[in-house]
Amino acid sequence: MANIAILGYGTVGSGVVEVLKTNKKRIEAKACQPIEIKYVLDLRDFPNDPIQNVITHNYDDILNDPSVEVVVEVMGGTNPAYTFVKSALQKGKSVCTSNKELVASYGSELMRIAKENNVNFLYEASVGGGIPIIRPINRSITSDRIEEITGILNGTTNYMLSKMSDEDLEYNDVLSDAQEKGYAERNPDADVEGYDACRKIAILASLATEKTVSYDDIYTEGITSISKADIAYIKKMGGSVKLLATAKFNDGKVWARVAPAVVLNENPLSMVNDVFNAILLKGNMLGDVMFYGKGAGKLPTASAVVSDIVEAIRHKDINLGIGWSEQKQELMSIDDVLVRKFVRVEYNNKEEAKADVLKVFGTDEIMEFFGLENEFAFVTCEAKEAEINDKLNELINCKGIVSILNSIRMEG
Amino acid sequence: MANIAILGYGTVGSGVVEVLKTNKKRIEAKACQPIEIKYVLDLRDFPNDPIQNVITHNYDDILNDPSVEVVVEVMGGTNPAYTFVKSALQKGKSVCTSNKELVASYGSELMRIAKENNVNFLYEASVGGGIPIIRPINRSITSDRIEEITGILNGTTNYMLSKMSDEDLEYNDVLSDAQEKGYAERNPDADVEGYDACRKIAILASLATEKTVSYDDIYTEGITSISKADIAYIKKMGGSVKLLATAKFNDGKVWARVAPAVVLNENPLSMVNDVFNAILLKGNMLGDVMFYGKGAGKLPTASAVVSDIVEAIRHKDINLGIGWSEQKQELMSIDDVLVRKFVRVEYNNKEEAKADVLKVFGTDEIMEFFGLENEFAFVTCEAKEAEINDKLNELINCKGIVSILNSIRMEG
Repeated sequence: MANIAILGYGTVGSGVVEVLKTNKKRIEAKACQPIEIKYVLDLRDFPNDPIQNVITHNYDDILNDPSVEVVVEVMGGTNPAYTFVKSALQKGKSVCTSNKELVASYGSELMRIAKENNVNFLYEASVGGGIPIIRPINRSITSDRIEEITGILNGTTNYMLSKMSDEDLEYNDVLSDAQEKGYAERNPDADVEGYDACRKIAILASLATEKTVSYDDIYTEGITSISKADIAYIKKMGGSVKLLATAKFNDGKVWARVAPAVVLNENPLSMVNDVFNAILLKGNMLGDVMFYGKGAGKLPTASAVVSDIVEAIRHKDINLGIGWSEQKQELMSIDDVLVRKFVRVEYNNKEEAKADVLKVFGTDEIMEFFGLENEFAFVTCEAKEAEINDKLNELINCKGIVSILNSIRMEG
Repeated sequence: MANIAILGYGTVGSGVVEVLKTNKKRIEAKACQPIEIKYVLDLRDFPNDPIQNVITHNYDDILNDPSVEVVVEVMGGTNPAYTFVKSALQKGKSVCTSNKELVASYGSELMRIAKENNVNFLYEASVGGGIPIIRPINRSITSDRIEEITGILNGTTNYMLSKMSDEDLEYNDVLSDAQEKGYAERNPDADVEGYDACRKIAILASLATEKTVSYDDIYTEGITSISKADIAYIKKMGGSVKLLATAKFNDGKVWARVAPAVVLNENPLSMVNDVFNAILLKGNMLGDVMFYGKGAGKLPTASAVVSDIVEAIRHKDINLGIGWSEQKQELMSIDDVLVRKFVRVEYNNKEEAKADVLKVFGTDEIMEFFGLENEFAFVTCEAKEAEINDKLNELINCKGIVSILNSIRMEG
């Protein structure tokens, strides 16, 4: 019999209870023993819910009960989650969490404390919701040098970009829709500005390098500037816009970036639509592998948390020794990363503007789109980000060009 | 230091040596110790290859060397692989294999023997080549009841079907091409008749049910009847033809099937082209997750084998207790499975034939294709396989119909 305690009876917490109940037989067979929810910590009471019997408002009840083997942290945020998790580990309890903020901010320290106490700190649900990705990297991709990780890691923005494309809508319209459906928060910044995806790629990059990649160091750009006009051109090119979180690892050099990108239809990430997430990983022996599924949602996320509970119970007193160290991983500036960009310009004189583009970027292939007057789009040559940006500044000052309407990196 | 022995220095065996050499540092860090290839068993000698120093022609050298911890079986076939593997396990050595034939035929017995001897029998590379799938099912999808597994599990046939579609070619033309490129054997039956995919879905279905699903019980149909005319209609419908290996698990009832199917473009499996494989798995909490990558090839397959070697070394004297029992899983007849079929018919009188289709299948929606005279296609209503087949027999006897040119199940 394994006793567990759940911190937080919100969406994920109640999902964990539901998964444990619905699939009790299979889960207990996998854990090789019965699992009992001994406590649920929440500030609230739930008088009409059977969970009320095990509700506590005092974390010390859990901390000081030596029969609790596994603490499940599904509160979110870092305060008090960090203090609670740290003290649980120090008391010799394993911790399973869905909290990307906690893992991205304090992961290496918590893994060290877990190791010192011969318990485990597991966080499968912190990236990609229900998609198995943390354990596959730790337990399956062990014979490969990981060269690249590129993910669609935020379901809300992927839903919004898919809807803009499918229904020919502007950003603001799909934002309201996503807010009404409960996919986006009233303050949507964490999703639309890329902060959520940034924390997740920081976790994956830390796993790949086995050092701490700080999310503060990752260049992050959201989707707020993407317009239906951009998408119209890009669809015509045979592509779509996705918010990609990327990390590349080559010859000891590492860089990471979160930004919208043009993904052409031959790339498997192009078919990842709506709230789905996917992580494409390139190994030096394996080539490309991709993991696809629901990146959020109560039950998929809870399913991943419960798989960690099973893993923790099966590895009582065995630290799995997986994760990354507290040593900081320096990142290369993305100014030095090679890119090509899709660029939309407004012109006052088309022929002159074409000549300007040819002069600055060496291409005379332009795309026009019926109904979009006084503008065209093109794809730049490949050069370092900083050079491309310099050239874009040069282009703005050309006589034929009025303005640069948008520029979006091309993927791959 | 962990000593290993490799049985067979063919494509996968030499790949294993290459992966271990190329990624030595990372692999040994993951295994927490150096790994030494102490023997390679092969009938041949390799005088100009450094491997010659450790070549043996006598399996007893390996079996009787107590310092060999892990035996890597990459010979293929069941004889002598079965005897070799069994005796290695009995001697207390873990075994890692890429041999789907061996796993599908003797998996449960070998897992039992491994358990009795407190070692491991691991087979990540037996399904999906380099794609992590066995360990994710065993270690990540532990909180879900698996409801369905559908895979594109054979790279050769997927390459052939993709090429037929992309280049508007007939089956025989792409077969010759696949044979020239080395993707298909001189005798291509194992691939094109679906036998290879059948063994792989038997393994996945056994993992899901935790009982033995015998591949002999699985209805298996290959791709040899697929024509470029079929593909032309199906492309126009917004779909493609894939050889799907399917297993469904509901209320204790299990069925499995390998057959070509029409996959519509909204299904994530539709974008799996060329030699790529993918496995779509549906969990009752998780929803759909998909694993995608290279299903064959020297280095991807070897990468999966080496990840098993790492796992075996890290679990010395700890049986991971995963797999399935020797108890047989009965399968429901696919006659009772609900299907819809895409059907192409040749007619002598179009209006009469349309009336016949309407009478038998209740649909008057037909598709015609420019250049294909005296024929049309339609999609049947949904009914049990046996009923649909009865109706097809009824249709053949209708006055307006000359013959049924082909019928292909619709996926989903």
